Amino acid sequence: MTNEKVSAAPSVRRLPGYLNIIRAFQEEGGEYISSAAIAKELDMDAIQVRKDLAITGVLGRPQRGYPVEELLTAIERFLGWDTARDAVLVGVGNLGSALLGYREFNLHGLTIIAAFDTDHRKIGTVIHGVKIMNGRTMDIQLSRLGIKMAILTVPAGEAQETANVLVQAEIEGIWNFTGVKLAVPVHVTVQNEDLSSGFAMLCIKMHNKRGIRGINGG
Amino acid sequence: MTNEKVSAAPSVRRLPGYLNIIRAFQEEGGEYISSAAIAKELDMDAIQVRKDLAITGVLGRPQRGYPVEELLTAIERFLGWDTARDAVLVGVGNLGSALLGYREFNLHGLTIIAAFDTDHRKIGTVIHGVKIMNGRTMDIQLSRLGIKMAILTVPAGEAQETANVLVQAEIEGIWNFTGVKLAVPVHVTVQNEDLSSGFAMLCIKMHNKRGIRGINGG
Repeated sequence: MTNEKVSAAPSVRRLPGYLNIIRAFQEEGGEYISSAAIAKELDMDAIQVRKDLAITGVLGRPQRGYPVEELLTAIERFLGWDTARDAVLVGVGNLGSALLGYREFNLHGLTIIAAFDTDHRKIGTVIHGVKIMNGRTMDIQLSRLGIKMAILTVPAGEAQETANVLVQAEIEGIWNFTGVKLAVPVHVTVQNEDLSSGFAMLCIKMHNKRGIRGINGG
Repeated sequence: MTNEKVSAAPSVRRLPGYLNIIRAFQEEGGEYISSAAIAKELDMDAIQVRKDLAITGVLGRPQRGYPVEELLTAIERFLGWDTARDAVLVGVGNLGSALLGYREFNLHGLTIIAAFDTDHRKIGTVIHGVKIMNGRTMDIQLSRLGIKMAILTVPAGEAQETANVLVQAEIEGIWNFTGVKLAVPVHVTVQNEDLSSGFAMLCIKMHNKRGIRGINGG
């Protein structure tokens, strides 16, 4: 099971991208979509698309492709996005503010219902429709709200301390943008986000396209 | 070669994370680091770490591990991060502003030397040390600056139009945060960024941990 999880991770990462394409296709009235059509939109291989979609349990039909409605439902259910997910955001700096206004999240069932900061100039204000609450009383507020997921965008120096408070308040999942490796109990899930990963991919692809060298760095 | 590129992508994505850990290890005076030590920090499998690092051409030594200095140099050279990379950012909204202040980029040799926007209240101001220039004269400015890489954070409705200007101005790589599929000539590289990918991973991991279902969604 553990190995299976690791190997499926890249497939899971690609599912949100598939969702966008399949939704757009549905809005245009399409009932069946082929793996080739999806692959073309994403500049991918159709075999990889079929492999990725297989994890949702929906199979394409010969000559027709995937039933769009069934595929959308299956992907959303697989990701747990069929039920809305409420989260809080902790640390309303530049990145935190940007994420509060990131509209794609709503499409994916993620609703940020409150944000926390310790800066008194921010507390009580509303940013992109989200109220900023006092970070010093976060433990009490979280218990009251019954939230299980937190987006962590505090400065690196405050990351572990803040994570400790989140764990105490029975948060089960932390989406960690701080760049700090967090120590949490085994029942808590941490997803580390590093925006530089995409930059690494861009650099490599540009190198390859220029023909300076191949992927093997030779 | 094409297949090789696709299969190596997850490895490339993990390299920035390895860099952070290996740098921290070096700062503490370590000369050799084992794949097991790296794997432990990232909660990964040591075999996967060795496989990933193999693409840089550096081999670990039995009983000792990887020579830290050599490994750092090899990863940075592989990613093209040994030479500083200049980029511009186009669209200084919430996400754009946040990326201007994202300090991790500097660690990775990415320097944002200018930003563009069409909002007259922003033009001429300086955000996180980066000057905001007039987006309407972007083509002229880009030619003058000789920049090859652009970070695209304009609203979705302006994405393709802005990309056209970038292509005209001989930009070779676009890091695309707009969620729009861009049509560009074949010599231009586009790296699409979707912040929701990480959210997908967090949702799946939380599901698995709760034991509600496995990765196969059954």
